[in-house]
Amino acid sequence: MASVFRASTRLRSAARLPAARSLSTTASLRASEKPYFPNEPTAPSVSGAIPGPKNQAAAAELDKVFDVRSLNMLTDYNQSIGNYIADLDGNKLLDVYAQIASIPVGYNNPHLKEVAATPEMTSALINRPALGNFPSSDWAHVLKTGVLRAAPKGLDQVFTAMAGSDANETAYKAAFMYYRQMQRGGPEVEFTEEELLSTMNNAGPGSPQLSILSFKSAFHGRLFGSLSTTRSKAIHKLDIPAFDWPQATFPQLKYPLEEHVQENAAEEQRCLAEVERLIKEFHNPVAAVMVEPIQSEGGDNHASPAFFQGLRDITKRTNVLFIVDEVQTGVVLGPRPLEPVLTPDMVTFSKKAQTAGYYYGNPALRPNKPYRQFNTWMGDPARALIFRGIIDEVERLGLVENTRITGDYLYGGLQRLAEKYPQHFQNLRGKNQGTFIAWDTPKRDQLVAKAKSFGINIGGSGASAVRLRPMLVFQKHHADILLEKLEQIIQAV
Amino acid sequence: MASVFRASTRLRSAARLPAARSLSTTASLRASEKPYFPNEPTAPSVSGAIPGPKNQAAAAELDKVFDVRSLNMLTDYNQSIGNYIADLDGNKLLDVYAQIASIPVGYNNPHLKEVAATPEMTSALINRPALGNFPSSDWAHVLKTGVLRAAPKGLDQVFTAMAGSDANETAYKAAFMYYRQMQRGGPEVEFTEEELLSTMNNAGPGSPQLSILSFKSAFHGRLFGSLSTTRSKAIHKLDIPAFDWPQATFPQLKYPLEEHVQENAAEEQRCLAEVERLIKEFHNPVAAVMVEPIQSEGGDNHASPAFFQGLRDITKRTNVLFIVDEVQTGVVLGPRPLEPVLTPDMVTFSKKAQTAGYYYGNPALRPNKPYRQFNTWMGDPARALIFRGIIDEVERLGLVENTRITGDYLYGGLQRLAEKYPQHFQNLRGKNQGTFIAWDTPKRDQLVAKAKSFGINIGGSGASAVRLRPMLVFQKHHADILLEKLEQIIQAV
Repeated sequence: MASVFRASTRLRSAARLPAARSLSTTASLRASEKPYFPNEPTAPSVSGAIPGPKNQAAAAELDKVFDVRSLNMLTDYNQSIGNYIADLDGNKLLDVYAQIASIPVGYNNPHLKEVAATPEMTSALINRPALGNFPSSDWAHVLKTGVLRAAPKGLDQVFTAMAGSDANETAYKAAFMYYRQMQRGGPEVEFTEEELLSTMNNAGPGSPQLSILSFKSAFHGRLFGSLSTTRSKAIHKLDIPAFDWPQATFPQLKYPLEEHVQENAAEEQRCLAEVERLIKEFHNPVAAVMVEPIQSEGGDNHASPAFFQGLRDITKRTNVLFIVDEVQTGVVLGPRPLEPVLTPDMVTFSKKAQTAGYYYGNPALRPNKPYRQFNTWMGDPARALIFRGIIDEVERLGLVENTRITGDYLYGGLQRLAEKYPQHFQNLRGKNQGTFIAWDTPKRDQLVAKAKSFGINIGGSGASAVRLRPMLVFQKHHADILLEKLEQIIQAV
Repeated sequence: MASVFRASTRLRSAARLPAARSLSTTASLRASEKPYFPNEPTAPSVSGAIPGPKNQAAAAELDKVFDVRSLNMLTDYNQSIGNYIADLDGNKLLDVYAQIASIPVGYNNPHLKEVAATPEMTSALINRPALGNFPSSDWAHVLKTGVLRAAPKGLDQVFTAMAGSDANETAYKAAFMYYRQMQRGGPEVEFTEEELLSTMNNAGPGSPQLSILSFKSAFHGRLFGSLSTTRSKAIHKLDIPAFDWPQATFPQLKYPLEEHVQENAAEEQRCLAEVERLIKEFHNPVAAVMVEPIQSEGGDNHASPAFFQGLRDITKRTNVLFIVDEVQTGVVLGPRPLEPVLTPDMVTFSKKAQTAGYYYGNPALRPNKPYRQFNTWMGDPARALIFRGIIDEVERLGLVENTRITGDYLYGGLQRLAEKYPQHFQNLRGKNQGTFIAWDTPKRDQLVAKAKSFGINIGGSGASAVRLRPMLVFQKHHADILLEKLEQIIQAV
């Protein structure tokens, strides 16, 4: 098999941007204390019950045409600013959920407002191209000054997509095409007549029964291929036909990590052995292993760099591709949990990137003929321009450094709360992971619901975790408010 | 089974808008002759070979980071206007392909430019909501004054999506959940323990082996579920695992229709019988039938209203859902080929809508619990605002009427060419379908390539068809140019 597996390089993980080069650490430290949004509220404000009367009336109206059973709150985006989200009844909540971890640089960010007003944006909005056929003349420039500035080292090419699910599925498609190409003996080997005919019947050998290996509790999206790799909750999967694809156990680490070093290492080895066994034995051959750096929807499950290094080693050894799903962790998680890890073959991104796609480096991951990996729009240049604006803002404000500093500060505060209220803050995790922090708590759903009346918009993951997903403009003074409110909330639950 | 199948109503097919009510036919007639874009070129202009030197240099640059093997031309959207697309070397082509049938109201449409500059658009771009959780307070208003104004009669609710593929797949998911819900005995029946456990293993009964029936030559997208219903070309499907789902024959009509009335009716009956047999006998039970009103990618294959009526009757009789894929035909095809046809259960849309989703009417098509049909973004409000602007423009300019008039005129001209050059214009089709016209020609690929040097940007569909997909602002004077150039092109091929 040709060498898709690149030489060992350090992973600067997908869309985890370098700290702004022009800012010294001291400048960044200062920057992280001076508010980025001078007009932001200094504290949450809540008057009356949530949802309030205006919210309820508007929800009833929306319900006539749009399913609102997952409604959290109808939002007044004109009144939302920075880290604060406003509802229709005038309440302003500190938002540490951030549109399911997808808003990076604050509501009504002034720089993004400028980006929205550029002629490039107008043209992208009103002259939407079919990017595979008729890209705008500046598309290479937009990619190089935007999307690709956040690319992991060694993955210098991109296939653009619309959202996380189709980013993952197009990466799977690239993996399947690559796998079969290697089986055939290379890109120049033509398809057989039998392949050409059988694929029109959705049958092998043209439509082969290959698989993607993912992990228990993983979340990779909800379309048919991505959902077949999603193993988060039954409610995500019930009644939907799925491919017969294998799942391995994701390490279930014990906390605090420093007290369970050997146990956790053994658990990770056990999981790695399971991965290798499945690759070798599963009846539908595995074309790629798909993993999140931190299982996000599935409950904020972490693993050590050694585990990911192990996955890279196994996939290299067994000649299957290694895909990392950075949809939720990407665009500045803080310090880099996967470092050092060998470069994956593909890394997918979306959410805080506000656009989507997969990065890759090996040119052989381009299918051997045009129009095999293709669709009408292949992404949206308007959203690619927004991503570029986000990267500018991350660098201008030193948001990698801010997220590291604020995350450490916040984690310290949560540790103190965990010592004081151990039953409410179990398995605290995300140390050195910026603000990507979580813990388990017995009455999680009540806590999340109750938090609104204390002015906090917060989310859960998995069965029992509270997950923090603040924006990158979340600062120490916001952390102070969050810590104070959390203490009040757990006493009220 | 509860009545998902609505009473017989006439189909005002998906996103086929009513002609602007305020315009009389006479006014519309005039409108269709006065140029909508006063600054549009009066004719194509081509200097030198296409692709020219600037295009070639830019393509080489783009190729370093983005697969360009499907590149048609790098486009200068600043110089593109109305029906004319400009390349990097200063060539301006009359565009009857329109970004693979996805640009409706012309390049640099001034009304859309205004929409792009509104505060609503800025907010939608920079404060992107998770629409299922935190929709903006005006989301109901945006839907009602936009997306839903183009809804087929009786389908007054919408699930929004990103593009055609995920619109189709979410419709399939709704169909599967509905089918199982009916099997279980209704929405109040809880999932069994066995279902909850088996679905986590991608196995039945939780992940049932149900199917979607589609048609040979159909195109419904390229993600894993949609690709399993796509039967257009092997190159779209090769090496990608597919579900074991059934395909029925789409009628292969003979032209001219008026000379093959009985033969064609018999062909359609044969295909309908096959559909019914597959629904009754296919080993993976059919939850829904999916069909395009005109098979578009698959070669511009038409069928009569009686065929679609037959599909509606069969699906009613057999208690399976009937989904119509209007991704390519939607948003003003011209007169309505499906009329009269009973209302489908779901209708999907994208492309000229510039956003995507599926319309439905029966509230039981909302799954019985929240978060079953859900994803982070569930569409893009920025693109929903563009769709609203498009609908405004269609009504303001009377583009339904324009497309009817121009389409009839163009069809007449093509008939004359077909009489003169019968070998070059075979099976002319699309009469009374606005400008959605196609014909077969022996050297199709050469013709499409050659057309550029004559200043025409045109596309193909299927193995041998030239497909016309002009914008809705395509007028008689454009048709005159196209007809003249086509005559020159076929003589040069």
